[in-house]
Amino acid sequence: MPHGSDILLSLFIVFVAAQIGAEIAQRLKLPGVVGEIAAGCVVGPSVLGWVQPAEALDVLAEIGVVLLLFSVGLETRIDEMKRVGRSALLVGVLGVIVPFALGSLWAHGAGFDWAKSLFVAAAFVATSAGITARVLQELGALKREESRVILGAAVIDDILAMLLLGIVTALQSGDTPRLGHLAIVLAEAVGFVLVIGWLGTRVMRRASPWLEAPINPLSPLTIVLALCLGLAFASTQFGLAAIIGAFLAGMVASETRQRETLEHQTQPLLALMTPFFFVMTGAKVELAQLDNADALLALGVITLIAIVSKLLGGFLGALSLGKRAALIVGVGMVPRGEVGVVVASLGLAAGVFSPRTYALIVAMSLITAVITPPVLALLLRRSPDAAATPD
Amino acid sequence: MPHGSDILLSLFIVFVAAQIGAEIAQRLKLPGVVGEIAAGCVVGPSVLGWVQPAEALDVLAEIGVVLLLFSVGLETRIDEMKRVGRSALLVGVLGVIVPFALGSLWAHGAGFDWAKSLFVAAAFVATSAGITARVLQELGALKREESRVILGAAVIDDILAMLLLGIVTALQSGDTPRLGHLAIVLAEAVGFVLVIGWLGTRVMRRASPWLEAPINPLSPLTIVLALCLGLAFASTQFGLAAIIGAFLAGMVASETRQRETLEHQTQPLLALMTPFFFVMTGAKVELAQLDNADALLALGVITLIAIVSKLLGGFLGALSLGKRAALIVGVGMVPRGEVGVVVASLGLAAGVFSPRTYALIVAMSLITAVITPPVLALLLRRSPDAAATPD
Repeated sequence: MPHGSDILLSLFIVFVAAQIGAEIAQRLKLPGVVGEIAAGCVVGPSVLGWVQPAEALDVLAEIGVVLLLFSVGLETRIDEMKRVGRSALLVGVLGVIVPFALGSLWAHGAGFDWAKSLFVAAAFVATSAGITARVLQELGALKREESRVILGAAVIDDILAMLLLGIVTALQSGDTPRLGHLAIVLAEAVGFVLVIGWLGTRVMRRASPWLEAPINPLSPLTIVLALCLGLAFASTQFGLAAIIGAFLAGMVASETRQRETLEHQTQPLLALMTPFFFVMTGAKVELAQLDNADALLALGVITLIAIVSKLLGGFLGALSLGKRAALIVGVGMVPRGEVGVVVASLGLAAGVFSPRTYALIVAMSLITAVITPPVLALLLRRSPDAAATPD
Repeated sequence: MPHGSDILLSLFIVFVAAQIGAEIAQRLKLPGVVGEIAAGCVVGPSVLGWVQPAEALDVLAEIGVVLLLFSVGLETRIDEMKRVGRSALLVGVLGVIVPFALGSLWAHGAGFDWAKSLFVAAAFVATSAGITARVLQELGALKREESRVILGAAVIDDILAMLLLGIVTALQSGDTPRLGHLAIVLAEAVGFVLVIGWLGTRVMRRASPWLEAPINPLSPLTIVLALCLGLAFASTQFGLAAIIGAFLAGMVASETRQRETLEHQTQPLLALMTPFFFVMTGAKVELAQLDNADALLALGVITLIAIVSKLLGGFLGALSLGKRAALIVGVGMVPRGEVGVVVASLGLAAGVFSPRTYALIVAMSLITAVITPPVLALLLRRSPDAAATPD
């Protein structure tokens, strides 16, 4: 019986495109993820049109990036994260302030009133950890100090971006943001991260026997996958990205005795699911938006501001690690990925942006995601792992 | 940023429900799959309503059953299939003829004209291999002769059911089925299965080095997963179920040197994805349809005919294996699962069925899927593996 055959064809094309793209990129000494995103551009509506956006593909992409951050969490020990806490906090805060300031200045200069300028600037803010995490994982660099700073900063960044979005949304309707309310929102998000990070870790250190209690021989895996999905959902309820919860779930699970088995078993899951995230990221690049000089110029300016501001914020925040390491952190914070797209969608829906501004912000987010991996890979390969904590 | 949080909640609920259901069932000495389907009934719209049908969940379910049949194929050697070819053919043919004959007699007796009766009967025909395959895999019974007969018969059954659906669809508009056209359709489907099975096997026996050529260390897995998705799609293009292609892909891949690694790596994929298939199967049971005596009676009759006819066909076809083995084969062929649902949907869309008949056929398909696993498990556990080919 023919049954859902269209979607099967899409799955096949996305999956094969990812493999071919990754293979070509790796033979060119680029990270595989570059090839997967590029393959997405090629099979997506802009070029071949073999894969059309579909809700089911977006869900697979979401599962893919959730599993990716879960596996990155599995390779991250909470004690190592604590050691870089101060740098991560500084990178997270400066990585929000600088892009927000430069973004709103540019937007105001481009003719938006101040309230709208702040909204536009909010789309410059949130780093999307998926792209960077994949590059770090591919290059085996997750144990480096810079990587831990980036991951910690991405969590802080997401909390601040969420608060900022709350503030600028209130400003659009002329409301004064209620500070008491914002304080509660902040406290909830920070509380969520801290409670999961600290309590979860303590529970998990003793949970190893309990993970093997079920009859299912794969039960350590299925239990932590349930935890991953549960915390991914829970973090959205605190206004955070799903990947933050998934990362926390992985970090918590890495405290169990079964960590190595789990890391091993997660590999096939990543092999199946993450291609959907990266290929669909590429498929969303609308090359048609860039077919005139005006649009290209505006996109160039907006992208330059986005990159420079985040790079600067990250670099300044991480300077205590040394210039080279600070540069790596700065570059690692550049990708906006799908988070910028979400803010842009909200702006479009609220009537704050024109469709053109929306298209520009989406294109900027995607370009930052596409250009980061090769630069980051180059920097990591050229700079020896001198600053790494002995392990 | 809240992003797709509804679907994350559904994923979490489905996944956790499956784990709890499977654990309870296994503690009650039932196959885990019974618990997963029952959990689906509970969290689905009929009882708690925590999970609503959604396209994305159906796609995950489809991927789940495709991976399941792929892994069953991985445990199946083509040479062992050939050895049971004659029995499988007989089971496949009789397992179509008997249900079709009894189904059309019942439908005509219930007041349908002959053309419509034959359409109704077509919904009685196609076995859905997913449920049975899972039970056989769970009990480690895939190497038994009965299992191979069931799997082979499921392939033949699907080809015949597809042809039959073509014939009865033509009859609805008063056309005479064009025998030449049907012969071509039959030849294409049989050709697809034979070419993949024979040529694919030969290619794969020599492809082992080539599977390791890509840089990606997981490349044997990613290449065979691509093959799985590709053949799943291709088989829908020949009018067959996606799971037939996935089964063939697994069987072909089992000829490679990397078979054991692949079997091992497939386990986590099954752990993540198959719960969606079984829970969504359960979630589709509409208990509300059964709230009056008339409906219950009709459902009882239709389900009884569906079970007895398939059991009889399978039993007679497999008698050469001995009565006990023939009974196991007959029971294994009983589940209609989603295939009956697809035929019923076509009938509803074409105006051949009333919504009530549709609901009855859907309920019958699901009931056959729900009641088979415990019976099959009981039979397999009570009957020693005497007839198994030495391995």
